[in-house]
Amino acid sequence: MTAATPPNPGTNLDPWYSHYAARTAGLSVSEVRALFAVASRPEVVSLAGGMPNVSALPQELVETAVMRTVRDQGPVALQYGSGQGTPRLREQILDVMSLEGIHASVDDVVVTTGSQHALELVSKLFLDPGDVVIAEGPSYVTAMVVFRSFQAEVAHVAMDEHGLIPESLRETIANLKRAGKRLKFLYTIPSFQNPMGVTLSWQRRMEVLEIARANDILVIEDNPYGLLYFDQAPPHAMRSLEEDGVVYLGTFSKTLAPGLRVGWALAPHAIREKLILANEAAVLSPSSFAQIVISEYLASADWRGQIDVFRSSYKERRDAMLTALKEHLPGLHWTVPNGGFYVWLTMPGHLDSKAMLPRAVKELVAYTPGTAFFADGGGRNAMRLSFCYPTPEFIREGVRRLATVINGELSLLNEFSQTGPLSIQTEERQGVLPPNVG
Amino acid sequence: MTAATPPNPGTNLDPWYSHYAARTAGLSVSEVRALFAVASRPEVVSLAGGMPNVSALPQELVETAVMRTVRDQGPVALQYGSGQGTPRLREQILDVMSLEGIHASVDDVVVTTGSQHALELVSKLFLDPGDVVIAEGPSYVTAMVVFRSFQAEVAHVAMDEHGLIPESLRETIANLKRAGKRLKFLYTIPSFQNPMGVTLSWQRRMEVLEIARANDILVIEDNPYGLLYFDQAPPHAMRSLEEDGVVYLGTFSKTLAPGLRVGWALAPHAIREKLILANEAAVLSPSSFAQIVISEYLASADWRGQIDVFRSSYKERRDAMLTALKEHLPGLHWTVPNGGFYVWLTMPGHLDSKAMLPRAVKELVAYTPGTAFFADGGGRNAMRLSFCYPTPEFIREGVRRLATVINGELSLLNEFSQTGPLSIQTEERQGVLPPNVG
Repeated sequence: MTAATPPNPGTNLDPWYSHYAARTAGLSVSEVRALFAVASRPEVVSLAGGMPNVSALPQELVETAVMRTVRDQGPVALQYGSGQGTPRLREQILDVMSLEGIHASVDDVVVTTGSQHALELVSKLFLDPGDVVIAEGPSYVTAMVVFRSFQAEVAHVAMDEHGLIPESLRETIANLKRAGKRLKFLYTIPSFQNPMGVTLSWQRRMEVLEIARANDILVIEDNPYGLLYFDQAPPHAMRSLEEDGVVYLGTFSKTLAPGLRVGWALAPHAIREKLILANEAAVLSPSSFAQIVISEYLASADWRGQIDVFRSSYKERRDAMLTALKEHLPGLHWTVPNGGFYVWLTMPGHLDSKAMLPRAVKELVAYTPGTAFFADGGGRNAMRLSFCYPTPEFIREGVRRLATVINGELSLLNEFSQTGPLSIQTEERQGVLPPNVG
Repeated sequence: MTAATPPNPGTNLDPWYSHYAARTAGLSVSEVRALFAVASRPEVVSLAGGMPNVSALPQELVETAVMRTVRDQGPVALQYGSGQGTPRLREQILDVMSLEGIHASVDDVVVTTGSQHALELVSKLFLDPGDVVIAEGPSYVTAMVVFRSFQAEVAHVAMDEHGLIPESLRETIANLKRAGKRLKFLYTIPSFQNPMGVTLSWQRRMEVLEIARANDILVIEDNPYGLLYFDQAPPHAMRSLEEDGVVYLGTFSKTLAPGLRVGWALAPHAIREKLILANEAAVLSPSSFAQIVISEYLASADWRGQIDVFRSSYKERRDAMLTALKEHLPGLHWTVPNGGFYVWLTMPGHLDSKAMLPRAVKELVAYTPGTAFFADGGGRNAMRLSFCYPTPEFIREGVRRLATVINGELSLLNEFSQTGPLSIQTEERQGVLPPNVG
């Protein structure tokens, strides 16, 4: 998962070993993959995944949308469609985006197979080998997998509780330019960031856009969680401030359901044209069936009310997690998300979350180690805790088990540090250390 | 559409002109795209598209599958799934492939967003800039778009009524190797080829695999039409003969419906592992909803019987087209497909199907010009006629209109050729000229 991992495009047991493209070296198996397979057993409380709570979606709403699709629009739903997506769904997507202050033309929306595929297509359009993508540190794992799969490097920008730090962005850009690097875009999740859960302030949104403009860098604004706020809405999307310099990525995976695989990109005119061509090459057209089901859902259900239902559900889970953290791990640092799916927990600097994971799984709790979210080995003493999928009861139990593991590690290390050799590590600090706002 | 088209990654009106990746130059708008927009008007008989006849699929079969999905498996269908696809659907895909002689492990199947996406992913895994893909000449348009989008070149192999000619394959490989080119794979549609409609004989399948083995070239066997035969089944799939050297691509787009966007790759072990990683990077997971709908369809409907229904429907349409060609264009050459969607029509060498297309659309009939299917400018006097989508009545009317246009061109050219300047062109031959088997 880190840039330091040596590329391993295959083995000599693979007769096609010598045939792979150079970029295939960037596609490596996650180091924690095998462990996560174990962690998916039902007795393990997984605070590791990013699966939305689809059980909060009433079955009858889906049933109505699906039956309308089959009965009223069967032949169209079963057929190939346009590479850009249906005009009707693109119109409805404008309504969704208007909730976050975005005004756009239906012509500039491209429907994709989840917003993940929009990210893949944008990366395919822009990234040459050796190009650099700037991303928050930490950032979304599978975005970095995509960038690496096109042989690009990821450079991180430091964060605090108000999102990425503009001054760090300026420095990162200046350093990369001095090193002669080609910067292609800034990839950012401004609202309820994955994995930190923090939100970029309004002031910083303006500042980041200004820096991007001044340095001729495109901004990829990935916004899966913006509508899932708990107490107050996040600032309007960055795309609401800037049209020509932002590719905005949206999705129905969190406000409806990921199983339909429908997301979108809103892109400046010329980029949008190329996105459509890239989409056609990749999948011919996004699923007509899934698009029509979503259109029928948006037309027949109170989708805004359903987003409120999701929000209450996630707020309850966030509260359960924060309360359990306060109770069981009062000495540690964590972020307090006002929306989305994730809390970022930072342990004392001498603890290693990846090394600790097998022990956690043995104690029947799983999380995602912080290093997974850094391209440069950062985040060693941090971890992402997801509150999206388990029930509040399981979240409380999961945090309790996690505390047992962490406290066990701490007392073990304290014991050893008093005897000598490990004391040198107690001053070490790895990765970000957000203020303890818990 | 041809390799001779200069790359045009953007214009100066595009502020991101200088930012695109080199590969984006390979994504160009089809020259005939604007014309096809006109051709989609209802008064035009389109023999141009590749849309299956989904109206031959009874609505109640889809309805049953969809209702079972929502009612019995809602939470799973709406959730993210595995990057490889569901085990149940992969098992069922083995049953489908066994009809074409393929025996395989469920572990080696990767479900994709249509087989188009399997082709995109395989190309991403294997193609470096400057690599060469060998393909039939003519070949499937959007496959060549994919290869070019990864900066690969396409080299064609000549064809006759029994599919690609092994001797031409040997020569092409030898020439490319002499020129120091890196050959990555042979892309072939052995059964009811797009666009020629011809089928690779059993003898040649064995010979082609032998050539590929001897030259260390992977074979990508694309088989969307194999089960849609009219009189007798085509030879077994090439994959039935060779496990380690073939990536087989299949799809539900033609035997069920393309609107669900579900296809698959069956790949040798090591390649399959990388395909899953590439699939996860691109879309996280293929649509759970679409996969479960198809699983329920295969479990509840007589899907083999439904394939028979599709076959009868396409056979009737193929017959309508061949009869109309005999009646209206008796002097021309065309292929006689025993399955699939397409007839390849060859005109006298001095006619240009692309130049003629606007006139055809004015006469309310559309086709795909032959040059679209060649990377090297071939196919100028040929065209692909699709019989998959229009009713037999419309097919007859379409061919009648087409004959008016072709005969008009012929008499115009004859007139001019008698007066001098154009006569030099009457001996010119472009592209393939299959024997008149009509």
